[in-house]
Amino acid sequence: MGFIPAELIKKKKHGGEHSREEILWLINSFTSGDLPDYQMSSWAMAVWFKGMTTSEIAYLTEAMRDSGDKFNFSNIKGPRIDKHSTGGVGDKTTLIIGPILAAAKVHIPMIAGRGLGHTGGTLDKLESIPGFRVSLTRAEFQEHVEKHFFSLIAQTEDICPADRKLYALRDVTGTVDSLPLICGSIMSKKLAEDLTGLVLDVKFGSGAFMKSVPEALELATLLKDTGEKNGVRVTALLTNMNEPLGRFVGNSVEVQECVDILSGKKFIDRGIDFYENTRKLSLELSGHMLYLAEKSATVAEGLALAESLLASGAALTAFKELVFRQGPGDLSKLPLAKSSLDVAALQSGFIHKINTEAVGLASIELGAGRRVASDKIDMTAGIEVLCKLGMKVEAGQPIFRIFGNCEEKFEGARQLLLTAIEINDAPPKDLLPLIVKVLT
Amino acid sequence: MGFIPAELIKKKKHGGEHSREEILWLINSFTSGDLPDYQMSSWAMAVWFKGMTTSEIAYLTEAMRDSGDKFNFSNIKGPRIDKHSTGGVGDKTTLIIGPILAAAKVHIPMIAGRGLGHTGGTLDKLESIPGFRVSLTRAEFQEHVEKHFFSLIAQTEDICPADRKLYALRDVTGTVDSLPLICGSIMSKKLAEDLTGLVLDVKFGSGAFMKSVPEALELATLLKDTGEKNGVRVTALLTNMNEPLGRFVGNSVEVQECVDILSGKKFIDRGIDFYENTRKLSLELSGHMLYLAEKSATVAEGLALAESLLASGAALTAFKELVFRQGPGDLSKLPLAKSSLDVAALQSGFIHKINTEAVGLASIELGAGRRVASDKIDMTAGIEVLCKLGMKVEAGQPIFRIFGNCEEKFEGARQLLLTAIEINDAPPKDLLPLIVKVLT
Repeated sequence: MGFIPAELIKKKKHGGEHSREEILWLINSFTSGDLPDYQMSSWAMAVWFKGMTTSEIAYLTEAMRDSGDKFNFSNIKGPRIDKHSTGGVGDKTTLIIGPILAAAKVHIPMIAGRGLGHTGGTLDKLESIPGFRVSLTRAEFQEHVEKHFFSLIAQTEDICPADRKLYALRDVTGTVDSLPLICGSIMSKKLAEDLTGLVLDVKFGSGAFMKSVPEALELATLLKDTGEKNGVRVTALLTNMNEPLGRFVGNSVEVQECVDILSGKKFIDRGIDFYENTRKLSLELSGHMLYLAEKSATVAEGLALAESLLASGAALTAFKELVFRQGPGDLSKLPLAKSSLDVAALQSGFIHKINTEAVGLASIELGAGRRVASDKIDMTAGIEVLCKLGMKVEAGQPIFRIFGNCEEKFEGARQLLLTAIEINDAPPKDLLPLIVKVLT
Repeated sequence: MGFIPAELIKKKKHGGEHSREEILWLINSFTSGDLPDYQMSSWAMAVWFKGMTTSEIAYLTEAMRDSGDKFNFSNIKGPRIDKHSTGGVGDKTTLIIGPILAAAKVHIPMIAGRGLGHTGGTLDKLESIPGFRVSLTRAEFQEHVEKHFFSLIAQTEDICPADRKLYALRDVTGTVDSLPLICGSIMSKKLAEDLTGLVLDVKFGSGAFMKSVPEALELATLLKDTGEKNGVRVTALLTNMNEPLGRFVGNSVEVQECVDILSGKKFIDRGIDFYENTRKLSLELSGHMLYLAEKSATVAEGLALAESLLASGAALTAFKELVFRQGPGDLSKLPLAKSSLDVAALQSGFIHKINTEAVGLASIELGAGRRVASDKIDMTAGIEVLCKLGMKVEAGQPIFRIFGNCEEKFEGARQLLLTAIEINDAPPKDLLPLIVKVLT
């Protein structure tokens, strides 16, 4: 069945609701090249202004999911669960959660991403382990997930090509920040994993794409509705990104943090365990995933199971097995930075605000991420966060430590980090908890 | 100076105002092909939602005017005046106004159009005169305007290429009905004529693109502001298109109506002069043009001058001279239709409403206009309007007469005309006059 593109654009422009047939036709025609970019970009702008209903978003997601290769895990009898984060700074929970779930014998088929904007990417972090491979064949990935529960691969050209093409177009036509289109983009890739359940870590705050809780809640609700309309059980957590998560921001340093946590270590400085938030969020997300995977009768029992798998060392073993399978990688040879530089507080007082996005940008400045796709990453570059919101600091006391192989980048990063921190005489009020809301 | 297209699109999306440099860069880059269609269409959709300021529209108009060939009438000492109509059904005033102004020795360099949608085009009407040529060379046109005051040519590929390209893109991306873009499209072509004054005939009603008076007023105001910001004196009349203008809708039949009016004839049927509205609107518009051309001290004196030039036969002579110069065309050989069919009222009562757009579409159905650009016109096809709003009719009495060379098209046109007419027991209330407002 054919439609007249200009009529579909006008329908959306006037706030109309598309049928499933219309959305499927739009996306399929766009992917095949029959619908020109200039009509798709005009439609996307109309969507930016008028939004989409949850039904429309579900159809969009379905159409993009079905635009290319999908995985089929019908050989697996039990649940397939994944976690998706909307992106943060120091957000490394995947490397702890995956092993915990694998230790619980839950299948996790994870298509992971590279860093985007100021946020890091799981693939980059794993590639800091010498020998680690993220470009498995489809058959290898399928086998690893089926036999060994947990595997991670990079998105390929063949998975959700409609999403790749639409994202590239939105990027140059001013419609990246459309919630329905963001939702379709995220969920189409997750649904291509043939999941039964998904836990979403929707970040809000100064280091997240959604700056406020209401914005994050709106996105979380859309994502959850979209997943459920496509037959996947979804739990969404709204989590705090008003400061970096945990101790490190970077690649090999974040892997080290995860290995430490999987080994039961703490890192206590001035009475604060800087690993605590990473550990806590990883366990909470794992608890929800174990519950969705029917490994526990309640979320609380799921959390307890996650804690025991971490404490027993079973999760660490699962992580080491992953690194061996997708390699063999050598965790004992994590690269270390040649140089470091302490960044000292310019005044005494309480840490009042952290512009966490600026901390992420400082890590990219150091070479821990890419400004353009062709940039090469310095796997050792990163930032150790030595302060937390509400902490009292003295002038001259280190609040960050910079690592990397390229010292000439340190001063720029130091300046960026100093502007990212607001120190005040009075302690900050109304600090939000790590997890503000759970949508089940 | 270069800009980042996505940033300009986002600026407009958020309701920002573009600078002159930004607008000129957008239009020039688009015309040269450096700015891809997919960015222009996204920007146009953002304009549809957020509008443009009068300054932005003036810059847009300037950029499109300057995108190709323009005329230069610096050899002419006095004023150059033109009229533009936003398009109607039976709208033939140009063929009376041009001769009146030429008889008054006012220069009118007129780039005219073809029919668009349900409305007729001046060029098509003139081409129904055997031998008439609308494709003069630039040099011929320039000479005719300078020496003989009045000439008409078709728009060429080289005049306002930015407008041609943008209109074609808007047509397929759902942004034709954007007032700022309509305004830029109209005014760029008029300003390429190197005018000193312009009278706008902005139509409202069932046969116009703007259905209501407020919509027409908004467009008229934008058009006037845009012209004046570009240094042209502009008068705008809001005129009634709730019924066809005058007696005929078509091509050779409309030329015949104009020749009759220029010859001082009336056409009185059941006490009504069906030529009256065409004559009155032509004279009013001419009066304003003569005033802008400084041929009269007041608009009223301009109107009196127009009436005297019509009454003396000077305008008819000027029309015959035009037809000779741009030909020679032969007015004595206007083609006549082979067949006709009367369309009778289905019930008695008062003519309550006329869907004038449907009357226009019926004339296109008969072959008087094109559905697609490649359609060939039947120059004899047309409709004689035998009713007027508020007129009392009896069942069985003819309310339209259909003309044309293709009888098999008559029944479809008859059905369309019958649905276009609403007959009621009570006379209609609150009929609007022919001219509801003049913006000077």
